[in-house]
Amino acid sequence: MSDPTPNPPSDRHRLVVVGAGFAGLQLVKSLGHDKRLAIQLIDRRNHHIFQPLLYQAATSILPPSQIAWPIRQLTRKYPNVTTVLAEVASVDAIARQVRLAGGASLAYDTLVIATGVTHAYFGHDDWAAFAPGLKTLEDATQIRRRILLGFERAEAEPAAAEAHLTFVIVGAGPTGMELAGTIAELARTHLPDEFRNIDTRRARVLLIEAGPTILPTFDPSLAAYALRALVELGVEVRTGEAVTACNADGVVTSAGPIAAHTVIWAAGVEASPAATWLGLAGDRVGRSPAAPNLTAPGFPDVFVIGDTASVTWREGTLVPGIAPAAKQQGAYVARVVRARLDGRPPPPPFRYRHQGSLATIGRNRAIIDFGDIKLKGFLAWWLWGAAHIYFLITARSRLAVTWNWIWAYARNEPAARLITGPITPDEG
Amino acid sequence: MSDPTPNPPSDRHRLVVVGAGFAGLQLVKSLGHDKRLAIQLIDRRNHHIFQPLLYQAATSILPPSQIAWPIRQLTRKYPNVTTVLAEVASVDAIARQVRLAGGASLAYDTLVIATGVTHAYFGHDDWAAFAPGLKTLEDATQIRRRILLGFERAEAEPAAAEAHLTFVIVGAGPTGMELAGTIAELARTHLPDEFRNIDTRRARVLLIEAGPTILPTFDPSLAAYALRALVELGVEVRTGEAVTACNADGVVTSAGPIAAHTVIWAAGVEASPAATWLGLAGDRVGRSPAAPNLTAPGFPDVFVIGDTASVTWREGTLVPGIAPAAKQQGAYVARVVRARLDGRPPPPPFRYRHQGSLATIGRNRAIIDFGDIKLKGFLAWWLWGAAHIYFLITARSRLAVTWNWIWAYARNEPAARLITGPITPDEG
Repeated sequence: MSDPTPNPPSDRHRLVVVGAGFAGLQLVKSLGHDKRLAIQLIDRRNHHIFQPLLYQAATSILPPSQIAWPIRQLTRKYPNVTTVLAEVASVDAIARQVRLAGGASLAYDTLVIATGVTHAYFGHDDWAAFAPGLKTLEDATQIRRRILLGFERAEAEPAAAEAHLTFVIVGAGPTGMELAGTIAELARTHLPDEFRNIDTRRARVLLIEAGPTILPTFDPSLAAYALRALVELGVEVRTGEAVTACNADGVVTSAGPIAAHTVIWAAGVEASPAATWLGLAGDRVGRSPAAPNLTAPGFPDVFVIGDTASVTWREGTLVPGIAPAAKQQGAYVARVVRARLDGRPPPPPFRYRHQGSLATIGRNRAIIDFGDIKLKGFLAWWLWGAAHIYFLITARSRLAVTWNWIWAYARNEPAARLITGPITPDEG
Repeated sequence: MSDPTPNPPSDRHRLVVVGAGFAGLQLVKSLGHDKRLAIQLIDRRNHHIFQPLLYQAATSILPPSQIAWPIRQLTRKYPNVTTVLAEVASVDAIARQVRLAGGASLAYDTLVIATGVTHAYFGHDDWAAFAPGLKTLEDATQIRRRILLGFERAEAEPAAAEAHLTFVIVGAGPTGMELAGTIAELARTHLPDEFRNIDTRRARVLLIEAGPTILPTFDPSLAAYALRALVELGVEVRTGEAVTACNADGVVTSAGPIAAHTVIWAAGVEASPAATWLGLAGDRVGRSPAAPNLTAPGFPDVFVIGDTASVTWREGTLVPGIAPAAKQQGAYVARVVRARLDGRPPPPPFRYRHQGSLATIGRNRAIIDFGDIKLKGFLAWWLWGAAHIYFLITARSRLAVTWNWIWAYARNEPAARLITGPITPDEG
């Protein structure tokens, strides 16, 4: 196989960016018009995903195409940016080469690794088959399939409906809570009129959390409100209960087995192998260490940003793994790169500015923690919706998502309640 | 496994409908409010597909969710309709039972089989792996993947770009022509700005037809116009050229081999096994014979409608396999069933009213054959768009499709240019 992307003319500074998530994309946008650079943006998918709404694709509220866009389309207006659809196999930081799966290499002068995280099963990778996590569009489509097939199986076998109508979400962070709330709402609001042999409102939605509380990163008063809202929606919240096994029948927790057709894993993440590529020791979940200027320690020309990096915030805590944090890091590294090209002194160390935490619990209810200001309820829900629409990547999606939300709200018609793939029981 | 759907109270007439395409769905809608009936609508998918726009899902113009809707949602307002997600294995017309895959059975008083057609390879089923056809959402997603990966591979290996950028469509009926026109437009209009190593406008799109002409069901003057429009779009149209093999390298035709990364099969259909289930002799492509009242000959309580039936039209021709024909047959059988329940004389034999044939060739160009009136060009294109939006099943989709078309037209941004699934070369 020949070199897949001819390296750019050597008179330009070769910037290679791995990962087109929020961090990598922000970096590329910030530097896209700088003619001194030849930028190659590598991703193993052809699309950027708007992660904060991925749970809505997994629950049939939004179609995948409204929360994902071709990376090429997002970068087409920057003539010095080349998009490369490929998987990175390793980095040779001595030879300054990124090696792609398939054998080709890309040479760099500056490398930025922004490869994010994946879900982790704490050493129990065999659980993945029974309890899928939610990071990709394929994950979302598979989870959507399972959820919808649970209702279908219950309708087909009303005598065995209980397990088919049991949905277990493991992990009560924002994603777990949002999944639980949306599934409960599907069962109670959207679906009851469509089934004849079962009452979908009898579905059990369990949110299981090993820690002592849901939403540990939120203010306790907001977490308590979210807990009440979940219970009102019919979600059974179980804290202090650890999952000890996932299998074809459901899950086993410290309190006993739960028969469930659908189990979704929202309990833990593991960093992508940025640290491994560089030969650095990762932290507990594999995140690469990062110097104050977001370079990888010992590699002044390699930056590690976004969820794959462990960046200190305040009082020993880490910068949270949320979109605004990733974007700030991407924008910061753009400033460092530009200062280097200009021969100017570097900007001061990266400082994360926390703009707030948001989460939603079904329709009409959300929580927002701005620090001094804490909001909950209907107003918070409106702000949550407005913020997410504002931050959506393209104008087309802003209108389409708004429209689909109005429709789902007013007409109880989720936009994408499709089961694709086989319907045979063995498979799902 | 228990009986999947408890049979309805015996005081109601049990109507079982197999297939929720245009024919089956129209029948169910026409009878949905008749309280004397207990209707069971069986489909092996959870969604109804708007087939006339499926090619747009295959070419990334529209997302699958805008041309497909949950069958349960479409029938939820009819309390006497039960939707059954299941595959039919056979029919026992003596015992009046439909047997489902998995072993369960549904008893019927009246049965309607509306199971449509699938693509056929004229005895060469091994070609399916290399030349997918377009009937399901999964087909559309797979074809979309192949088309988009063709451009990606060419960008990664510019030296081998020629085969990657060769797209072969086999069969020049409306679907083949619409696929060819849309792919040519993607290559020439939507994509050029996004690639750096290749010129996507160099893509070859070949429309190969074994017969002497494209669009044989249209008036020759309209077919000639379509041919000119295709050539202007850059499509190479080859008539009188039969495909003799499909393999991993592309196709072989009577004129020689063509190396092509993407081959799409739009050349032939084969009826679903309605005739086989009833022990009847099917026609050349397996369609069940149908009596003038659309019952299966010898089975007065079994109707065969839509594409799976061979229904005579005029001068020995058959009713065409298009949506309006299927809907007319569904509505007709509803009248027959209602007359029987009323004890009234049956309606006169089914008579197909042809409302016209439409097809589009890229943006701004379409052909419409109303019989006396023949339209082509820009006005026809507007009418084509308006007609398709009008006939879309739900209001949400009407607005969403309109919006996406405007966006694709004005901004060159197709709504759903996503590659899902693995990106490894071996896979496709």
